[in-house]
Amino acid sequence: MMIDAEILPARPRRAARNLFELTLDLPPKSSRNVLRALHEQLRVAILDGRFAAGLQLPASRALAERLGLSRNTVVAAYDLLLSEGYIVTHPGSGTFVAAVARGKKQSAPSEVADARLNAVWRNATPFASLRKNNVLYDFRTGIPDTSRFPFEIWRRLHNRSLREIARSQPLYGDAAGDAALREAIANHVSFTRAVACDSQNIVVTAGAQQAFDLLARVLVTPGKTVVAVEHPGYRSTRAVFASAGAIIKPVPVDEEGIVVAHIPHDARVICVTPSHQFPMGVPMSPARRSALLRFASEHHAVIVEDDYDGEFRFEGRPLDALQTLDDSESVFYVGTFSKSLFPGLRQGFLVAPRWSIKALSCARQLCDWHAPIIDQRTLAAFIGEGHLARHVRRMRKVYEERRRALRAALARHCGGELVPFPSFAGLHLSVRVNGSVDPALAVARAAQLGIAMDSFSRYAAMDSVPRGLIFGYSLIKDAQIDAAAQKVAEALRLAAL
Amino acid sequence: MMIDAEILPARPRRAARNLFELTLDLPPKSSRNVLRALHEQLRVAILDGRFAAGLQLPASRALAERLGLSRNTVVAAYDLLLSEGYIVTHPGSGTFVAAVARGKKQSAPSEVADARLNAVWRNATPFASLRKNNVLYDFRTGIPDTSRFPFEIWRRLHNRSLREIARSQPLYGDAAGDAALREAIANHVSFTRAVACDSQNIVVTAGAQQAFDLLARVLVTPGKTVVAVEHPGYRSTRAVFASAGAIIKPVPVDEEGIVVAHIPHDARVICVTPSHQFPMGVPMSPARRSALLRFASEHHAVIVEDDYDGEFRFEGRPLDALQTLDDSESVFYVGTFSKSLFPGLRQGFLVAPRWSIKALSCARQLCDWHAPIIDQRTLAAFIGEGHLARHVRRMRKVYEERRRALRAALARHCGGELVPFPSFAGLHLSVRVNGSVDPALAVARAAQLGIAMDSFSRYAAMDSVPRGLIFGYSLIKDAQIDAAAQKVAEALRLAAL
Repeated sequence: MMIDAEILPARPRRAARNLFELTLDLPPKSSRNVLRALHEQLRVAILDGRFAAGLQLPASRALAERLGLSRNTVVAAYDLLLSEGYIVTHPGSGTFVAAVARGKKQSAPSEVADARLNAVWRNATPFASLRKNNVLYDFRTGIPDTSRFPFEIWRRLHNRSLREIARSQPLYGDAAGDAALREAIANHVSFTRAVACDSQNIVVTAGAQQAFDLLARVLVTPGKTVVAVEHPGYRSTRAVFASAGAIIKPVPVDEEGIVVAHIPHDARVICVTPSHQFPMGVPMSPARRSALLRFASEHHAVIVEDDYDGEFRFEGRPLDALQTLDDSESVFYVGTFSKSLFPGLRQGFLVAPRWSIKALSCARQLCDWHAPIIDQRTLAAFIGEGHLARHVRRMRKVYEERRRALRAALARHCGGELVPFPSFAGLHLSVRVNGSVDPALAVARAAQLGIAMDSFSRYAAMDSVPRGLIFGYSLIKDAQIDAAAQKVAEALRLAAL
Repeated sequence: MMIDAEILPARPRRAARNLFELTLDLPPKSSRNVLRALHEQLRVAILDGRFAAGLQLPASRALAERLGLSRNTVVAAYDLLLSEGYIVTHPGSGTFVAAVARGKKQSAPSEVADARLNAVWRNATPFASLRKNNVLYDFRTGIPDTSRFPFEIWRRLHNRSLREIARSQPLYGDAAGDAALREAIANHVSFTRAVACDSQNIVVTAGAQQAFDLLARVLVTPGKTVVAVEHPGYRSTRAVFASAGAIIKPVPVDEEGIVVAHIPHDARVICVTPSHQFPMGVPMSPARRSALLRFASEHHAVIVEDDYDGEFRFEGRPLDALQTLDDSESVFYVGTFSKSLFPGLRQGFLVAPRWSIKALSCARQLCDWHAPIIDQRTLAAFIGEGHLARHVRRMRKVYEERRRALRAALARHCGGELVPFPSFAGLHLSVRVNGSVDPALAVARAAQLGIAMDSFSRYAAMDSVPRGLIFGYSLIKDAQIDAAAQKVAEALRLAAL
């Protein structure tokens, strides 16, 4: 079970708020260890400074709801912390972290240790990874269904690449990627996404995340460069640009995508998800695409086009990628194989304008030299022999069917409250929440019923986030969809109480 | 964008099944406009570069089937393109995209483009990778001899890991690394290098380079943090700290290692290679080790201990790692599998103090999330089943024998001019150059004789670099060593003229 530090009401550490989240890893509610685990983890968070002195803790009732625990458990944990002097209460205003002497224990972060870290990283906590804990109905996003992945073909191609490597003395490779893979990727995106490029435009990356990281390195001058991001939007893009010293400015998204008129004029990098906005799911309209490209051209800004799941496109005529429409060399197209193959592979790529390739290659070399060679050769063969295209085609049908079933089931059981945003692609469906139910509370209620899903608020870059829920449909089984939608309806009712 | 017409007949690109993935927006088959639409859309794809010159188009029959058109329509569209010069046919081999003027131009790096890059990266050029060009005698460093690597065992363990992944739904993993690999690495370095750690201290990295990068991220405050580096020293460490905004201060190295008395008092990070100084090859003396640790403890500085080839240790009692001697949690030990396995694998690790693990995990997550999971599992098994230790033991004998032969041959042929620095480990031997010969000129003369070797001057961080040459002995054949040393003597004579 995870909670976001973001939900804690007081915010003396506001800078860190958007970057990182606190993770509580608790045993099942029924376990007799749940109190001990909660108490210990809160204590450590206070001791090591993640919960700073003066931070207001959530009310016991709110925390209990969020964690799916009984309120008594949370009250008991707070009482223990109170008796030990880690927290204080101010009647009428709430519970706060006390100013405590930090532990002198060798391996807990000490003040000396803290002083040795760059301030950005002192309170950093990794984003929680997906875990399967008590999830009956899995609507989480970001992980593809790999049950139909041709692992046997992958194995065969890998073994062939390994034999080739074994026969030659393996040297260090090119930072931008193995020539065969760059060529294969260029062909692939030319065909599937009409992206105009050749292999010299390709930089192979360790997933989309490293593409963002390389871009942040070469585009951001710390403390100066303004980066516009979508609100709500993908957190890891925001976080990596922020950690590079960018000034992050969130720009709202509506049903046509990012509101170009709200992009600040000093933005020099604009990060967008035009095929399938994350998390809202809407495609960017043609008018907005033109306006965005015009903005970039006029202000010498660049656009980072994150096409994280645009290969899975179901209806209507596809909209051209921004990269395809661009005629001022201002678009960086980011692609990933984490959705079309599997995320553990860590393979992605950038289609970048020529003027940036040398800088990006240098940055990749300083990061980690280059991607593992055998994997690169394997992937090049997998694409070149048509296996990727075939797998995507097959999965497109699977996802399309599941998406249709999900839409129908949600309409059947929650039609009054949940209205899908227009969307024609990808691995998740987002819906607007009508009425007064708090979407974050609905997510908490759903968790109690064994449903893993998400609300837009986790992806907010500023206050006043659109009221929406996100249903990933890559992990859920077809046969579960109707029952899951019924449970969602139940969660909405519980949240309305 | 440059199109090289010459490659057309010689190297047609693989007939891409992916072509079928091109999105064509065609009217119904019965429409009289279908030919026009097909022709126009193919023409545009060629013009805007999605279909690159040299690309093989599918056979007309196959394309017709795929599109649900009559074959005549496709043949007619191809004929039009042929007559307009957009495609060419090579009888017997197929139909290919011709080299045509593209509609979309790409500029060379311009001032506008430059202005969009952070100043650090505007003139960046990647370090050259090793290439085999007219090298008869290969004394280059950094690449291990993989001729005895047990690729067959690696293949078997990889396939087992792949089967495990295929059976489970692969999720995203922990940024610090897979638990089994962290455990295996902790055991391995505890045993081989007496490094004091458990799996919680391990962060898996993409080679040593990513370890330096992660450290630069979390330790450096741009424009403020002073980083001391060895002079002469490893360039990529220096470069990655510099790119993170560190103030680099070079500190000279003598025959006992870094001269601690010359480390500036404001240094907060000190990068050293104590087992086998790069490039001089000397081990850091026990007195210097104590002094360095005292410096770090007194100034709240941290030490980055790069143990890039310390597993290959040949004589005498090994000196303790700085990490082993440290009692103020100030040492980061960087290890790599690029020398003990092979560099194309891109696997390495950090042994880091507890206080830094969370920050490093976050940094890794923002960089690229985590290392590829199958590779991590494969490596964990490779270490856990004893194959790494066995391979290192075997290679230690090979390298020791080669090193002995090299020392003897250099003494025989160049004894007056080249005097080895004291050194007991690693994959290269460094020598002091007596007399007046310019080492860099000797390297140039040697290249003319087919010898690849290196001088210290490439690794200088300031002027006045010690006069030395570096002989890697991982790539050269045993049988070549005597002849190579004779050639080196000849190069020295030529350089003295």
